[in-house]
Amino acid sequence: MSQWAIGIDFGGTAIKAAVVDKERGILTDRRVFTDTASGQRGIVVQLSALIADLYHEATRRNSAENFVGAGVGAPGAVDSRKGLLSYPPNLSGWAVVPLRDELQSCLMEREKLSIAVALDNDANVAALGEARYGAGREFQDFLMVTLGTGVGGGIVLDRKLYRGASGTAGEVGFMILDFEGPTIHAGIRGTLESFIGKKGILLLARQMIEATLAGSSAGALCGNDYSKLSPRHLQEAALAGDEVSIALWHRVGSLLGIGLANVTALMDIRKFVIGGGISAAGNLIFEPAMAKLKQSTLPSMHEGLELVPALLGNKAGMYGAAALCFG
Amino acid sequence: MSQWAIGIDFGGTAIKAAVVDKERGILTDRRVFTDTASGQRGIVVQLSALIADLYHEATRRNSAENFVGAGVGAPGAVDSRKGLLSYPPNLSGWAVVPLRDELQSCLMEREKLSIAVALDNDANVAALGEARYGAGREFQDFLMVTLGTGVGGGIVLDRKLYRGASGTAGEVGFMILDFEGPTIHAGIRGTLESFIGKKGILLLARQMIEATLAGSSAGALCGNDYSKLSPRHLQEAALAGDEVSIALWHRVGSLLGIGLANVTALMDIRKFVIGGGISAAGNLIFEPAMAKLKQSTLPSMHEGLELVPALLGNKAGMYGAAALCFG
Repeated sequence: MSQWAIGIDFGGTAIKAAVVDKERGILTDRRVFTDTASGQRGIVVQLSALIADLYHEATRRNSAENFVGAGVGAPGAVDSRKGLLSYPPNLSGWAVVPLRDELQSCLMEREKLSIAVALDNDANVAALGEARYGAGREFQDFLMVTLGTGVGGGIVLDRKLYRGASGTAGEVGFMILDFEGPTIHAGIRGTLESFIGKKGILLLARQMIEATLAGSSAGALCGNDYSKLSPRHLQEAALAGDEVSIALWHRVGSLLGIGLANVTALMDIRKFVIGGGISAAGNLIFEPAMAKLKQSTLPSMHEGLELVPALLGNKAGMYGAAALCFG
Repeated sequence: MSQWAIGIDFGGTAIKAAVVDKERGILTDRRVFTDTASGQRGIVVQLSALIADLYHEATRRNSAENFVGAGVGAPGAVDSRKGLLSYPPNLSGWAVVPLRDELQSCLMEREKLSIAVALDNDANVAALGEARYGAGREFQDFLMVTLGTGVGGGIVLDRKLYRGASGTAGEVGFMILDFEGPTIHAGIRGTLESFIGKKGILLLARQMIEATLAGSSAGALCGNDYSKLSPRHLQEAALAGDEVSIALWHRVGSLLGIGLANVTALMDIRKFVIGGGISAAGNLIFEPAMAKLKQSTLPSMHEGLELVPALLGNKAGMYGAAALCFG
């Protein structure tokens, strides 16, 4: 019998939760909307109830002796040693919350369950998921980049999460690529996220479309209402041959490649796992990213460079959260 | 009796060598010009003879039993596990040289000495020297930046050198800060070294002086021949109140701060030791660097940020090379 754990991907909109067997992977999973209306305490109760439900369901078929705990991946800054979650985006009113201890207490008091909880941030947890169950299984060291609304990162060194002394490592979205650039993100000019976060991509797309006399077929896809333009429209248009959209993704990929070049120069990391919704653009991004990564590093750093898509999609968080408990 | 080793700082112009006691530090040191005229084999012979001389001199007063080996810090790319030195700058005709094994063989054949040799690159070795004997003694994790002709870096994590899987980690000079910028270094646009390596500083200084109607007192210091302008002139002028020179160092410091911000965002490193000849500008650089580092990172990353001058000067290489042997 192998170990099993509960893995929770706790987001501002939805909570995804799974029972994960260390060897066999996800046994069962479910998804509920985050009960943001009930405030902080309400969410702690919601998370506890979800963990308790899954625990009771799973112990009908799995030995409780092999249960090792519940892991939670949360948005925002996490101090994993102290179990603190700070200022999660999309959860207004949360400041610094001792989420690990609150969950453990709530599980004990309301559910009469003594369950060890592990907490880390969503980007780290996704990286750990890919490291153990996904695209990172073959890599000793890699950076996972999540391209979505924001640009997140998680670093795996020697098959373990590298969190840094204060637990804030991996913030590749805050890498400054153009210190006098036109874009700003969280008060910082020219960061990778300011360029290729969802907002940056849409801003650039609108500028490129406006500057093109021939127009873009992405227009038809959003009903010519560019306030409704989405990355999906731009992917669809690019795949249908729209030149502006192809050029847009080329630019996005190139900028990603420059960011990765900085990671290679500084950390000697040469493997990159790319996930998140925006990464659905696939080779539209990956090819220019790899080309720019090579152009932007010394030839002596090229050996072994690889850029691969994430494999676990939106299950990476659940896998990685459970993996926090497998040690 | 404590351990002792020989530490060699092998440069393209000079070789500095010392007998280093693990507890007491440098016992004796010497400096010779690198015998570049004799080619690769000649230099191996020169290094062996130097090691043998120091060994014989030191064993008159120190127990040979406590001798743990000779460490060498070399310019260029080094694979420390394989003991390979690749394409050292300023040593024409060197390609990939198994310098560790060649030194050990030469010591055996010519000097009849069986001495274990350890090899690493000069930036790593300087960082290790500061970690064990200098400004990094109090820091668990830090980045050492060497500001000189080039901009080099060495990373210490958990008091040990972080070399990366291929041994190329720490190349902070190749961090891209302005991917569409005006300056190029080793074919890569907008790197930190392109801006604040010696060449970049002098280029910027000439541009700033040309653009200033009031002129600069740095002019008098180089006999109004700006082809002879040096960083030292610009430091002297700034300390005497020259506004252009002060603005120049402010710009250099700010650019350094942006580079360090990327290191903090990615690696959660918050301690920086700054060495190298250019760092003699001191607070002219350090103050704007710290200000820009804070402006360019999230407030949640500010706790514990420190930027301190290196303590060992041009002895860091000898200390660190010896420390390679102390384990």
